[in-house]
Amino acid sequence: MRNIKLILEFDGTNYHGWLRQNNAIPTVQLFVELALQKLFGVSAEVTGCSRTDAGVHAVNYTANFKITGTIPGENIYKAINQFLPNDIKAKKSEEVPDGFHAVYSVVNKTYRYYFYFDEFESPLLRNYAWNAGRKLDISNEALLTVANRACRHFIGEHDFTAFKASGGIAKTTVRTIYSAEVKHFSGKIFYLEICGNGFLYNMVRIITGTIVSVIEGKTKPDEISEIIEQRKRKKAGMTAPPQGLYLFDVCY
Amino acid sequence: MRNIKLILEFDGTNYHGWLRQNNAIPTVQLFVELALQKLFGVSAEVTGCSRTDAGVHAVNYTANFKITGTIPGENIYKAINQFLPNDIKAKKSEEVPDGFHAVYSVVNKTYRYYFYFDEFESPLLRNYAWNAGRKLDISNEALLTVANRACRHFIGEHDFTAFKASGGIAKTTVRTIYSAEVKHFSGKIFYLEICGNGFLYNMVRIITGTIVSVIEGKTKPDEISEIIEQRKRKKAGMTAPPQGLYLFDVCY
Repeated sequence: MRNIKLILEFDGTNYHGWLRQNNAIPTVQLFVELALQKLFGVSAEVTGCSRTDAGVHAVNYTANFKITGTIPGENIYKAINQFLPNDIKAKKSEEVPDGFHAVYSVVNKTYRYYFYFDEFESPLLRNYAWNAGRKLDISNEALLTVANRACRHFIGEHDFTAFKASGGIAKTTVRTIYSAEVKHFSGKIFYLEICGNGFLYNMVRIITGTIVSVIEGKTKPDEISEIIEQRKRKKAGMTAPPQGLYLFDVCY
Repeated sequence: MRNIKLILEFDGTNYHGWLRQNNAIPTVQLFVELALQKLFGVSAEVTGCSRTDAGVHAVNYTANFKITGTIPGENIYKAINQFLPNDIKAKKSEEVPDGFHAVYSVVNKTYRYYFYFDEFESPLLRNYAWNAGRKLDISNEALLTVANRACRHFIGEHDFTAFKASGGIAKTTVRTIYSAEVKHFSGKIFYLEICGNGFLYNMVRIITGTIVSVIEGKTKPDEISEIIEQRKRKKAGMTAPPQGLYLFDVCY
């Protein structure tokens, strides 16, 4: 059996996340496995780098699977694309050593969360960014300054219990964040880019909700450290909705 | 009867353009008229500033309609939004003089067309930008220089017969272009922004196809003048697909 690493981009709008589920709900994993079955004529279980929630997107989602067959590893992604829907496409594939595992081999993951402040709920952004609240009376520069003062407190090794939704499967709540920064994207849109060795259930969305609370002046930037230390979910901000979240990159 | 001007944003992905049609196909006009009927209890015909093709988007689409009733003009847009689907929303409304007409009162219109060059057909961009071809071996700066050398030839009053698809309803093929510029958006994405007193059927999409042909080195920037003068559709570039096109603004 060869071990194949596959990199996918997907628009999560029409899917109930990555993970195949027992009911008939469409998930990304299900469609990738159906495509592999059509391509190779046998079924293969695909391991994805993370569960994602319904509506969450991915730019470089990494998965691996074991398969026989003669299609060169670096060509598999092109062959599989003919059997994938337009909102899921493979951009790269390669044969990797047998020990490679899309979950256990992860060194770090980078997420982006896109948001904006406006009275108007944009139809064009409705599935791709979060309308976080009314337009604020501050300059882009001031917004970035206060947001990034908050971001700094997340960096380092911390127990992120306060930033974890119930229902996760993680054994430990300690994670290391290597970088966290809010940047201006275009027009009224900003994004948080955050890189860490792993993330708890809904952690990026709760961190985003907390940073938005700081931007709105409801939480002080330096309160973040206390919120982390107190380990109480209710001290942190709201869980930002799924459509602004993108699994941006995974390093192995 | 009051004359109401309404500004809409819509994601055109799920619609067969603006214009209500006799068959049951969903169009933006149909949904706006249905929403007005629910709000006011009487039917009103809505005049839109332009037909748009299936899949084309709008950021500031302008329409007008005649209605009685007591809802203040500047509040109508909020009231109508509760009856509109998520991919069509009104962002402004006001009562205007009786002579105002969404088509005949137009002073100028601005369109944007978003495109990128890449081997990979991005699922996240599939409905919002055109994958115009393979990645090119030129810098962003060189791409913008050559594209904008081509753009300059469109500016001014010209007979745009070469940049018109058959099937339009215009009485004259002469239009004035006030500005045309290709700009870098973000990452691999560029856009053409073009402003004129009016546009022929598919004119922005054919201009975009021609500028892409210039960027790819298939057409020389200074050939544009000859193509305009010769008035032959086949001399111009291909018609870029609808999903990259946005009606960006309309001035009255």
